[in-house]
Amino acid sequence: MLRPRSIAIIGASDDPTRIGGRPLSYLKTRGFAGAILPVNPNRATVQGLPAFRDVASLPQAPDAAIIAIPGEGAIAAAESLAARGCKAAITFTAGFAEVGPEGAAMQERLVAAGRRHGMRIVGPNCLGLFNAPLGYFPIFSASVEQGWIPGVVGIASQSGAYGSHLFAAARARGIGVPVLVTTGNEADLHLADFIEWMAAADEVKVIAAYAEGIRDGARFVQALEAARLARKPVVMMKVGRSAVGEAAAQSHTASIAGDDRVLDAVLEEFGVHRARTTEELLDVCYVAQKRIYPVGNTLGVVTISGGAGVLIADAAEAAGLPMPEMPLDAQARLKALVPFSSPRNPVDCTAQAFNDMKVVGAFAESMATDGGYTSLIAFFTAWGDSPSMTPPLRAELKQVLDRHPDRLFLLSILASPERTREWEADGFLVMEDPTRAVVALSAMGRFGESFERLPRSGWEVGHLDLPAQAPDEAEAKRILAEAGVPSVPERACRSADEAVAAALEFGFPVVAKILSPDILHKNEIGGVLLNLADEGAVRDGFATLMARAAERAPDARIEGVLVAKQVRDAVEMAIGVVRDPVFGPVAMVGLGGVFIEVFRDVAFRRCPVDEDEALAMIRALRGFPLLDGARGRPKADVPALARALAALSRFGMQKRVLSAEVNPLMVLPEGQGALAADAVIELD
Amino acid sequence: MLRPRSIAIIGASDDPTRIGGRPLSYLKTRGFAGAILPVNPNRATVQGLPAFRDVASLPQAPDAAIIAIPGEGAIAAAESLAARGCKAAITFTAGFAEVGPEGAAMQERLVAAGRRHGMRIVGPNCLGLFNAPLGYFPIFSASVEQGWIPGVVGIASQSGAYGSHLFAAARARGIGVPVLVTTGNEADLHLADFIEWMAAADEVKVIAAYAEGIRDGARFVQALEAARLARKPVVMMKVGRSAVGEAAAQSHTASIAGDDRVLDAVLEEFGVHRARTTEELLDVCYVAQKRIYPVGNTLGVVTISGGAGVLIADAAEAAGLPMPEMPLDAQARLKALVPFSSPRNPVDCTAQAFNDMKVVGAFAESMATDGGYTSLIAFFTAWGDSPSMTPPLRAELKQVLDRHPDRLFLLSILASPERTREWEADGFLVMEDPTRAVVALSAMGRFGESFERLPRSGWEVGHLDLPAQAPDEAEAKRILAEAGVPSVPERACRSADEAVAAALEFGFPVVAKILSPDILHKNEIGGVLLNLADEGAVRDGFATLMARAAERAPDARIEGVLVAKQVRDAVEMAIGVVRDPVFGPVAMVGLGGVFIEVFRDVAFRRCPVDEDEALAMIRALRGFPLLDGARGRPKADVPALARALAALSRFGMQKRVLSAEVNPLMVLPEGQGALAADAVIELD
Repeated sequence: MLRPRSIAIIGASDDPTRIGGRPLSYLKTRGFAGAILPVNPNRATVQGLPAFRDVASLPQAPDAAIIAIPGEGAIAAAESLAARGCKAAITFTAGFAEVGPEGAAMQERLVAAGRRHGMRIVGPNCLGLFNAPLGYFPIFSASVEQGWIPGVVGIASQSGAYGSHLFAAARARGIGVPVLVTTGNEADLHLADFIEWMAAADEVKVIAAYAEGIRDGARFVQALEAARLARKPVVMMKVGRSAVGEAAAQSHTASIAGDDRVLDAVLEEFGVHRARTTEELLDVCYVAQKRIYPVGNTLGVVTISGGAGVLIADAAEAAGLPMPEMPLDAQARLKALVPFSSPRNPVDCTAQAFNDMKVVGAFAESMATDGGYTSLIAFFTAWGDSPSMTPPLRAELKQVLDRHPDRLFLLSILASPERTREWEADGFLVMEDPTRAVVALSAMGRFGESFERLPRSGWEVGHLDLPAQAPDEAEAKRILAEAGVPSVPERACRSADEAVAAALEFGFPVVAKILSPDILHKNEIGGVLLNLADEGAVRDGFATLMARAAERAPDARIEGVLVAKQVRDAVEMAIGVVRDPVFGPVAMVGLGGVFIEVFRDVAFRRCPVDEDEALAMIRALRGFPLLDGARGRPKADVPALARALAALSRFGMQKRVLSAEVNPLMVLPEGQGALAADAVIELD
Repeated sequence: MLRPRSIAIIGASDDPTRIGGRPLSYLKTRGFAGAILPVNPNRATVQGLPAFRDVASLPQAPDAAIIAIPGEGAIAAAESLAARGCKAAITFTAGFAEVGPEGAAMQERLVAAGRRHGMRIVGPNCLGLFNAPLGYFPIFSASVEQGWIPGVVGIASQSGAYGSHLFAAARARGIGVPVLVTTGNEADLHLADFIEWMAAADEVKVIAAYAEGIRDGARFVQALEAARLARKPVVMMKVGRSAVGEAAAQSHTASIAGDDRVLDAVLEEFGVHRARTTEELLDVCYVAQKRIYPVGNTLGVVTISGGAGVLIADAAEAAGLPMPEMPLDAQARLKALVPFSSPRNPVDCTAQAFNDMKVVGAFAESMATDGGYTSLIAFFTAWGDSPSMTPPLRAELKQVLDRHPDRLFLLSILASPERTREWEADGFLVMEDPTRAVVALSAMGRFGESFERLPRSGWEVGHLDLPAQAPDEAEAKRILAEAGVPSVPERACRSADEAVAAALEFGFPVVAKILSPDILHKNEIGGVLLNLADEGAVRDGFATLMARAAERAPDARIEGVLVAKQVRDAVEMAIGVVRDPVFGPVAMVGLGGVFIEVFRDVAFRRCPVDEDEALAMIRALRGFPLLDGARGRPKADVPALARALAALSRFGMQKRVLSAEVNPLMVLPEGQGALAADAVIELD
């Protein structure tokens, strides 16, 4: 598909601006060394090359082929190409799954045609792909007209026009893209297949991806892990979060929508940077090209504008990039050099730099050496392209850069593209907007930390005997207790003696509730007693409940009294496992009730999660302070919560478990545990 | 200050790259028509102009002066300039309030020196200002070297270097800036004074502002209202939100920090767009230059990339810019034209446009005419600057634009600066990143809606008699009830008959609590009875409480029983008024407890707020669904909540009220009111 020695073009056009003409024109003029075989039944030559009337007439079986003819013709072409021995078809043709069920049926026939003979398909409804170093351009993007520049950023995009746009936008910023693949409807090959290919390919060091939907979670996860192990950062846009966007994605490439928050969790798990805008995607790729991924990333800022320093500090906090203070002795030295300067970090050279540019060099050098920051931003606005200021500034900063080649050294300046290229040739990263610079630099640290993580070892998920039917609440709690999620202890008692024995076993105080299949609203007949604090109270309570039941519900069948441990000072949480349509079993945790539904304060992660991962999920909740002693509460038993979540996530790996939810899970004060108060299990 | 006929430069330098030399060089070469009077005791001429040894030697009293000499000399210069009759001093000198208390004292002397004779001061620690159409450049920014371009965006910036950066960045994008003012330490004149000047000045149609702190809320508010009434949009950055940023702002221009959320509320009140990044600020200014501010703004998207359409739809939802669907009959017509197109909105021309560019014109025209969108984005990626694609594309789109000059018609394309200028000359807005385009377009609608709002009429805040001391809870509730915030009814009762009378008055059920100054924890002796549902229960309850008190707290003084209406199904809210150090009395509302403290879900607005404004605040809460029937609750009495909030905000206008808080305010189900359950008032 990406490195063929011959290519056929089914539907080759003599007009090099038309869909069937562009790739032929590009292949001819960009140095593709293999055979180019146009197929067109109506012409003897196409764009000067001899044309063949059909696949059968081709002088050889092509390694790859473009299919650029409509409807049934495309399927017939796929059939004959595959039969002839072609191994890869790039299908431009539209009108398949993206237009409805009829198109989807055609699409299945297209794939089947290839599959019978082992031919793989990109598309249909795609724009094509290229491997530029080979001069291989089976693509009808107009952006290819202006050529390509060498570089290391591979792009895999479901959307054709948008992938082509990314390529052109990258080129305009001086970011070289050796390989672009657009996958369209993904009838056969998916985005994941090309991410995985890029993870192994020498041409690519940084992977940019654009998706409207992930079709196969397992393949996607495998591809991301391959990239991570190869230490190649993945930067990804996934669109279709909004209602209008989701509808548009459906009609565009027939994408299916998974839960966007689950996707976020998966991307985080594999250290993928999810970009929210095209610019952010390119910004991160731009900085990632340096291949400096510091673990424990910190930011130092040297500036001629105190205002920019403030702005950058705000942006760094928002991006989670720490800006530690300069060492105090270094601050004193800088202050001695420029009395009105602020040498803390951000380090403001002040207008004094107008009169003496050596101040800038001294300040920047001290930040690199004394501050030890792994990322540096030098904000010098129009001085980056000023007749009077640029030459001395460049001399000062270049010295610092040369002494510290291991740092991400980024200039935030206003400069023409030509001047920017000069600074870049010196080795600087250059970005005009400092907020965007901060976002991109902060991503490098997260890549570094992700690359350091050990691969997840295999999990043994033993087999549990599960009932044939969905269990009721009590049965569900029993099953989960066996699986490692303990419940609030409770017992049905038929006598006052049994009630006392249960209370002694659970510990006081306890709650007692009348137990009857005929009394739905126990409170209305006074059928619930709280705070029973000793044996006498339990014994009296049993009698009181029996008396009330006899008096107020004389016809009800009374089975006894349910005695339960009374849980106090608990934080009510919800934990669960669900089967995501894309990524399979996923664990979730949130504060109970309104926090999940109204505030959407919930964390997800693929099952199984270990206790450390569970802790990280819990800490990521906005409401975490409620577990951590906010508002004068006692601190909650967060480790017990994490244990319960990890246990539930392992339970979620059982094949027959469709979902399981514990809500509420009562998280007691530190050291006292976390107990399920209600549970629901759905089984296949 | 901004239109003088003569200017003196105290500390003029012969070197045109130094701080004291740059403004002189600019004034000489940029066509300033007034007298330029360098003051330098050591030279006979400076940059070729005759120099004067001191202020006393000047041949005339200058209208304005630059002070560019250090320390005490600056104060002495201000003194003699003011005495001589100069009316405006632009003070570059640093080392005042930004370096600490000693500098602050010097700064006070500087201001006093001017004030004695009516001279106003910009700075100190500022970079200067310019009024470019007059060739008036009393500024030492290096960015001025490359000249300026005509335009309508005025910039007022507290930070000098950042203001200068904004000017240069604007110029690089083709945005003309006729007036730039940097205000530095704002010892005398503030940012607000220049915003107000720009609101009245013909040179300026769009105002960009940058601040690290607002010093005088009343002046600031007055300036924003002046701009609003003049229909001039204000786009503002306020930095220093983060801890590091706030510290940096303090050392940079000696700014004070107000509550950032209160500032947000004030900016929203006056329709100011708060930009989070420099690019966003310039984006909004760029689009605002068109001076099309549609009320009821909608977005139509025509694209060659379905992927971009999805991305733009996501961005529009995030920005709150509606994308209504195309009329169905128009969709049918477009579908007939291009069978595989998606004509809903976003409208995807699909790759068919490669083969027939007329499709694009037909689709865009239908969106303008049939869709009636006030904002249009045409996403055409590299086709915006493609040898084969640009000419036909431009011809098609220009026709649509010319027929609909009242629309914000924005092209999202990849194009060189030169090609971009050509599109702009045709009348198009051009922005590469579609997400940024959406944010900027959405701002135009909010400007339009703000311009339509009537000025706030004067409020009569009558005088209330308030106690000399801070009132206790009961007194506070009584005062607030008079002010229009009713409380949960309750009464101290000395007999069972009194208790029954109270209950009959309040309505059942009621709560009864033992009333004794000696019993702090009533629950511990069983001193609280809930759910007393009829006369008999109240009478029995009174007896029960008395008996329990006698038995369990025999030594306590018993004053009777407190009977209170039992509130059920209420949503607990918190409302309050606080005195913001910058903006004075501010009303706030939030859901009670953790929602405010942990989730920071709270809305602010300057006092007083009327009921409509109060409703808008309530609806802005993320937790609003809890009042609106989420999770099967009954809908709460939101109008009663709004009335209470409005009443409390009027109360907050009383001069002696430092703060007042009602927490919880029990908001009952629809039609049943909202009642204070606890209240605290702080008085001056």
